Amino acid sequence: MLKGNKYGIHRVIEPQGVLTQAAKKIDNDMTKRYSNEIICDVISLNIDSASFTQIEEACDKDIEKIGKMILDIVNERGKMQNPVTGSGGMFIGTVSYIGEDLDTDIQVGDKIASLVSLSMTPLRVDKIKAIHPEIDRVDIEGQAVLFESALYAKLPEDLPEPLALAALDVAGAPAQTAKLVQSGQSVLVLGGAGKSGMLVCYEAMKRVGPTGKVVAMDYSKDGVEELKRMGLCHEAFQASAALPVEVLDKALELNDGKEYDVSICCVNVNNCEMSAILPVRDGGCVYFFSMATSFTKAALGAEGVGKDIDMIIGNGYTKGHDKITLQEIRENPAIREVFEKKYV
Amino acid sequence: MLKGNKYGIHRVIEPQGVLTQAAKKIDNDMTKRYSNEIICDVISLNIDSASFTQIEEACDKDIEKIGKMILDIVNERGKMQNPVTGSGGMFIGTVSYIGEDLDTDIQVGDKIASLVSLSMTPLRVDKIKAIHPEIDRVDIEGQAVLFESALYAKLPEDLPEPLALAALDVAGAPAQTAKLVQSGQSVLVLGGAGKSGMLVCYEAMKRVGPTGKVVAMDYSKDGVEELKRMGLCHEAFQASAALPVEVLDKALELNDGKEYDVSICCVNVNNCEMSAILPVRDGGCVYFFSMATSFTKAALGAEGVGKDIDMIIGNGYTKGHDKITLQEIRENPAIREVFEKKYV
Repeated sequence: MLKGNKYGIHRVIEPQGVLTQAAKKIDNDMTKRYSNEIICDVISLNIDSASFTQIEEACDKDIEKIGKMILDIVNERGKMQNPVTGSGGMFIGTVSYIGEDLDTDIQVGDKIASLVSLSMTPLRVDKIKAIHPEIDRVDIEGQAVLFESALYAKLPEDLPEPLALAALDVAGAPAQTAKLVQSGQSVLVLGGAGKSGMLVCYEAMKRVGPTGKVVAMDYSKDGVEELKRMGLCHEAFQASAALPVEVLDKALELNDGKEYDVSICCVNVNNCEMSAILPVRDGGCVYFFSMATSFTKAALGAEGVGKDIDMIIGNGYTKGHDKITLQEIRENPAIREVFEKKYV
Repeated sequence: MLKGNKYGIHRVIEPQGVLTQAAKKIDNDMTKRYSNEIICDVISLNIDSASFTQIEEACDKDIEKIGKMILDIVNERGKMQNPVTGSGGMFIGTVSYIGEDLDTDIQVGDKIASLVSLSMTPLRVDKIKAIHPEIDRVDIEGQAVLFESALYAKLPEDLPEPLALAALDVAGAPAQTAKLVQSGQSVLVLGGAGKSGMLVCYEAMKRVGPTGKVVAMDYSKDGVEELKRMGLCHEAFQASAALPVEVLDKALELNDGKEYDVSICCVNVNNCEMSAILPVRDGGCVYFFSMATSFTKAALGAEGVGKDIDMIIGNGYTKGHDKITLQEIRENPAIREVFEKKYV
């Protein structure tokens, strides 16, 4: 049996010399089996929020058109990578094949969630069974491949599967927050009432401790009230992240006029870079978790306003990110309730 | 006297709620003077290359038409921001007014270069004196405003002006390298033979010291030879940064098979993210200085290959970046020679 490349390079069709994420088209033929791949029977796709929003808008929210657009993308590219946003999502499935060269603690039949993006994962969709626009989820019949370097999590037995999946989808954000935020810091979370935002707020509250401050912003007034009610921040305010002047004014007002040590952007719309940059002090840090972030707008924006800050590209992976995130759901019944209500 | 907003928001005419760069029209009335603004008599505009090319083509390379188009843009918008490309450039001028609320080491009469984009700088053009299409430069009579947060550099007396400008154009990269790279580290520089790459290599060599290692990659074979000859790295190799598999193999080979602590990407072409990510160890750092970097490709790419690394958006500004960069040019006659030959 053939052994594939650790990073999946053997499945790149075009252009050659790149990895599967950068490739225009990858090989989703699962009759080919490699000794260091895992093949899963896919149950559902959790489409990345920026991608789903783009598809929804392009299809005038018509469910049939959305289904056809998703099928077209997968048939064209061999993966569910939105050609406009570049982003993917994740899948949940049952392990149907484990290559003999792999050293793993999962077994055939285990239900797992992929923790690598669909934008690089070979996927074949045989049938779309249902689309759930309110949770960016698509139930399908089909198969997907996990490479040797790929990340995945066996779904926990003490949490319902859709709940675990919803949390794992944004596992990078709270885990990176845990690494980044220090005791006593002031932290601004943009889009705090969203899926990743809520986990980020909760983790930030734990990290800053009694001497720090967490201020959350959200576009939705209900979201702002919810964050306050749930105790996920010290202060919260309503604003549009695309209007940086307003965000700056309100954010500083709630931090005694002082600039923040850290801001974390979880808002999945365009032109939010300056709202994350302006409220941060020189020497502070901006962590962009939104896939709608523009590299050039951030780089030129910070320079334009003379901000000597570190700007970090949200890495969806950090060691143990699945465990950190699932633990948050276990620990905080209020977040669990919201996740069960909104994202399951 | 009125004090303006630190970021210049007081000069936004429309739409309200954004900064001057995103604004359609800003206020270039210099009879209004604010206590935290600097006003300069402009000598020349260095139009951004993408913008100048667009204007040149729209005007059939007719110098008079180009002049009129530039005047029209500035009169319409209050700034020299090309409505098609969105880009600006920078200006050179003499300081004519310094607001009393500013703490600065420049004086009225000093010759300075703006280090913020013309796309966000209030500008009034009274007269176009000469247009130099071969260097995208326009000599004018007029005035420009620098806000409290704006960056500028006093032009040094010991370096020719075009040389200083060429170096200041990429000042962020070597200064960020100085902050980032530690003694004893292994550093991979992609695009090492380019304008910013050479300064980055030189700074990295200083920082890693005798116990560290700097390996440079460049697309040009001549560039690779030049880097070696100039002693700007320990090792150098030729490759295309858009082909990460090849870069990974060659980079590891030159570092005794080990992954790197830091990689710095200075390659201004698309799809170089994975070449910067793959060779770095878990816990290491990737610094993206190229404006061609895709946020999503970096974020999803690192996740896709399970790399637990910090990825930093190259901030064009860090404290003292102009001084660090000009000092490199002074210190290293070989770099100065290359800059004078290629970029002046």
